[in-house]
Amino acid sequence: MPDSVATWVSQILAGDRRAIARAISAIENGEAERSALLKLLFRSAGKAAVIGVTGSPGTGKSTLVEKLAVEYRRLGRKVGIIAVDPTSPFSGGAILGDRIRMQNLATDEGVYIRSMATRGQLGGLAPAAYDVVTVLDAAGCGVILIETVGVGQDEVDVARLADVTLVLLVPGLGDEVQAFKAGVMEIADVFVINKADRPGAERLEQELTALLSVAPRQDGWRPPVLKTVAATGEGIPAVLEALDRFGTFGAGGCLAAERRRKQWRWRLLAMLQQRLLERVFAERLTPDDVARYAAEVAARRRDPYSAVEEMMKEFTQR
Amino acid sequence: MPDSVATWVSQILAGDRRAIARAISAIENGEAERSALLKLLFRSAGKAAVIGVTGSPGTGKSTLVEKLAVEYRRLGRKVGIIAVDPTSPFSGGAILGDRIRMQNLATDEGVYIRSMATRGQLGGLAPAAYDVVTVLDAAGCGVILIETVGVGQDEVDVARLADVTLVLLVPGLGDEVQAFKAGVMEIADVFVINKADRPGAERLEQELTALLSVAPRQDGWRPPVLKTVAATGEGIPAVLEALDRFGTFGAGGCLAAERRRKQWRWRLLAMLQQRLLERVFAERLTPDDVARYAAEVAARRRDPYSAVEEMMKEFTQR
Repeated sequence: MPDSVATWVSQILAGDRRAIARAISAIENGEAERSALLKLLFRSAGKAAVIGVTGSPGTGKSTLVEKLAVEYRRLGRKVGIIAVDPTSPFSGGAILGDRIRMQNLATDEGVYIRSMATRGQLGGLAPAAYDVVTVLDAAGCGVILIETVGVGQDEVDVARLADVTLVLLVPGLGDEVQAFKAGVMEIADVFVINKADRPGAERLEQELTALLSVAPRQDGWRPPVLKTVAATGEGIPAVLEALDRFGTFGAGGCLAAERRRKQWRWRLLAMLQQRLLERVFAERLTPDDVARYAAEVAARRRDPYSAVEEMMKEFTQR
Repeated sequence: MPDSVATWVSQILAGDRRAIARAISAIENGEAERSALLKLLFRSAGKAAVIGVTGSPGTGKSTLVEKLAVEYRRLGRKVGIIAVDPTSPFSGGAILGDRIRMQNLATDEGVYIRSMATRGQLGGLAPAAYDVVTVLDAAGCGVILIETVGVGQDEVDVARLADVTLVLLVPGLGDEVQAFKAGVMEIADVFVINKADRPGAERLEQELTALLSVAPRQDGWRPPVLKTVAATGEGIPAVLEALDRFGTFGAGGCLAAERRRKQWRWRLLAMLQQRLLERVFAERLTPDDVARYAAEVAARRRDPYSAVEEMMKEFTQR
């Protein structure tokens, strides 16, 4: 097995698309080789700029990500795109129509696009998505764009994965800025007002700028507020420039190192939690056991707290 | 300790507000008595109707929840409200201005309101929020409203907690319906178009109804599409009636039991994952250890995969 993993790694490092796809599948399915593979890939990773792009539905994230990718390609960089879909846990399917628009990028050998439907998983997006970042990074993608839909936990997750987080807004969503006060303000490194040809773009820009001036960031970075019309490509080069500027800012200060340590602390805990559960299942518990406990609790013949204690005891008493 | 827990439980069953507040704090802080307390409370719980209310920012969730609570109070039922805030993991603060509006309900002894800022926690909202449901249920709340902001994982979480999930929309958010196709459609038991006095309400209703008719639910329930102006109270009684109707529908079929088993399976796994991590910290790992590992990985002196293996080995080799 070590031999074939080594071959696999060298194929990934050479940018072999099928080897990359197989690695991502191994990660998503929690296959046994995953760990050996990722340990080796991690050594060659760490060079990519990881850019998180987030915002409410309808803000035009996919279009912006596509245009950013095209622009980075023009600069000669290989680009990875990870699109995190809000999957229904009931159907297991990921259906975002506008993802299809990116298909014209898929014919470019210098772009690797992968949708991840991790939402049905316990522990959320983070561990698997970061593993995919490691694969794409090792495969030579200089830029990795992570696109996620959501207001709430999703933004937070993406901020924990990315070197820089871009938050997208559009004019006319009403209470948007007010809602943004609650948490998102602090994770956004760059704001982009998309569909800026719509009425209300100026007002949104003013409100946002005012909000940012009353709540300065501790690290001294002033998040720029940019305007784009992603559909026509207007304003895209300025977004690249702002992302680049944040990278330079971060590299200069010790705050970037602190941010990275914090991110790793969180990622390690998320990984630990996931691996512990995997180990319980590998060694002790079967899905049938869980179904039996669940049926007992649903029928109120047993309380969930003692059920979980029993599930743990079986594990820890080995 | 068992004596004092028994006293505590009897206070909660009697609806003592301070005892309830203390129980919720014990849950949020993972205190040692938590487990003993919840085991006892679970025996007296299971009577409440748990209603999840979700939707994008700006749809008027807090106002709707407030009006629903007032209406249930009029019918003589005790009401619990759990408001899940999208907390920033960096500040730890929860700041949603419109929550203040609910303060006039807080003077009513028959209403218990609690904000939960669980977003910074690993494992997400679910385990702690369900424990709070158990407390409020045991304390005699016949109706428990869980309000959450979000598009994506938050809706899914709330659907796993609630007996019925109400999804709120407003006219004029553009691509809203399109975005909703991705996952939310399947978890919504009742749709409410709020701010229905705004232009576009009719069209939104038609689009939604059309969407629902092409994708019927497997369980045979046809989610109603209702219109409200929550600020004036218009349409609120019809919402109660629809929620009630879903309750009757669910109680009649075996699908409700299946749904409950599925929910418990997921909740038990979430609890197990959380408790495993707690145990690792209680027995083996200190926060300093994690910080040390994180610093090593951030400096790329070590890969995260072997770090997590070492963290686990320390636990499982006891």
